[in-house]
Amino acid sequence: MDKNAPIGIFDSGVGGLTVAREVMRQLPDERIVYFGDTARLPYGTKSQDTVIRFSEQIMRFLRSKGVKAIVIACNTASSYALDALRRSEDIPIIGVINAGARAAVSATKNGRIGVIGTDGTINSKAYSSVLKSMNPAVEVFGKACPLFVPLVEEGLLHDTVTDEIASRYLSVLKEKYIDTLVMGCTHYPLIRSTIARTMGDEVTLVNPAYETAVQLRTLLRSMEMDCDGDQEVRVEEKYQFYVSDMAEKFSSFAGFILPGKVKDTMLIDIEKY
Amino acid sequence: MDKNAPIGIFDSGVGGLTVAREVMRQLPDERIVYFGDTARLPYGTKSQDTVIRFSEQIMRFLRSKGVKAIVIACNTASSYALDALRRSEDIPIIGVINAGARAAVSATKNGRIGVIGTDGTINSKAYSSVLKSMNPAVEVFGKACPLFVPLVEEGLLHDTVTDEIASRYLSVLKEKYIDTLVMGCTHYPLIRSTIARTMGDEVTLVNPAYETAVQLRTLLRSMEMDCDGDQEVRVEEKYQFYVSDMAEKFSSFAGFILPGKVKDTMLIDIEKY
Repeated sequence: MDKNAPIGIFDSGVGGLTVAREVMRQLPDERIVYFGDTARLPYGTKSQDTVIRFSEQIMRFLRSKGVKAIVIACNTASSYALDALRRSEDIPIIGVINAGARAAVSATKNGRIGVIGTDGTINSKAYSSVLKSMNPAVEVFGKACPLFVPLVEEGLLHDTVTDEIASRYLSVLKEKYIDTLVMGCTHYPLIRSTIARTMGDEVTLVNPAYETAVQLRTLLRSMEMDCDGDQEVRVEEKYQFYVSDMAEKFSSFAGFILPGKVKDTMLIDIEKY
Repeated sequence: MDKNAPIGIFDSGVGGLTVAREVMRQLPDERIVYFGDTARLPYGTKSQDTVIRFSEQIMRFLRSKGVKAIVIACNTASSYALDALRRSEDIPIIGVINAGARAAVSATKNGRIGVIGTDGTINSKAYSSVLKSMNPAVEVFGKACPLFVPLVEEGLLHDTVTDEIASRYLSVLKEKYIDTLVMGCTHYPLIRSTIARTMGDEVTLVNPAYETAVQLRTLLRSMEMDCDGDQEVRVEEKYQFYVSDMAEKFSSFAGFILPGKVKDTMLIDIEKY
């Protein structure tokens, strides 16, 4: 495998760009191929079988681009499809869930950890089982927050309605006296300040996007698969973006999250893979 | 074509069940095959090309069930795909948009009509062009309300948050002195009371689901294609429900909207059609 091959990152849409941003920050020499499944988002309301099938198609597409490692930036795909993909693939695959869970287990002092995410992520109890496999003594309290994603996408990042919905969703977690809260959906760091204010200073917020980039860097170095940094590549070659629909809308949102990094977004028919 | 063949109804998910309910009420002898594209919902955020491709797959599936007519219950598919489907098919196809527009043109007295819907429905200006083709003198004011669907799906049908969001979305329409408002998304009749209270008594609300069933009945009678009512069929044969994902969740929601009418929901792979 070529050390200078790109890293594949995929998500159901734009949310995984927060993971791509962390990878760019922490591994600035690495090339990235990003895929957002904008024709079939969101994944959070879909069944495990469907999410696995979609993820396998995406994996075939990313392999066709010669990637050396895969980051599943989507929490739902991470919880539903990581094991299936690892069984069938021979390159390293990192999911945001394991990375987030590891950081939460390190951060908690009282062993009471909250997890917020989509219906799919919370109902799958994926965080809960990973957290307990890392430390059987922790207690995990999950809470689905299905309105957070549409509120973020509507741009209500600092708004009384978002405050009110956050207060309703998070009150059950406050009553559990958690000291650590995993933001188990890629959109949630964008309303981090609302979540932090609602939970209070005594609760540590874990951002799995950040932790995923940390884990990827460690893994590539341990395998001596990190790129040698000698490549001369232009931005448009270094960072490639593919979507299954709405390429222009994706480009404009991506340009907002990753200024100067998104030259062009290419449209592909993912159902052909 | 067999007069006793079923009517095909499709939507991106459960929303079209409000249309199916009206068809059942107004045409109680007709058989129905319903398809909800739950693996790929929502359509409102997707491009015209993608929505046409999805609709063509669904059309092939419904034709395989021998339907005599098609109702496009999804506003986005109705605005993006109706013309393309009519060009390639030889059976009657009714979209919710035309039916809703006809009723709005009849209802308005001051010629100022508002339309609310998803981004896709509003950005396509489909209602606007159909309304103006029926009466060039009307003025049409569209407003996308992207949070209404997630609020309905979260069950906040009578809630201060829904009141607040409705007040923000609808204030621009109130300022335009519209006297008629088309609820251009299948979910919206479920928050009809909030919308009516926000708009006030002087505004007539148009429910395209109701109007679509009226138009379907008129069309079938004029073609002498309405069923003869002599069939003896059990409910599970009369009303058939198919989805592309989450059949159980669909059944439970459908049972809520259509008590006693949904015996079973079958899962199909729509991408194969």
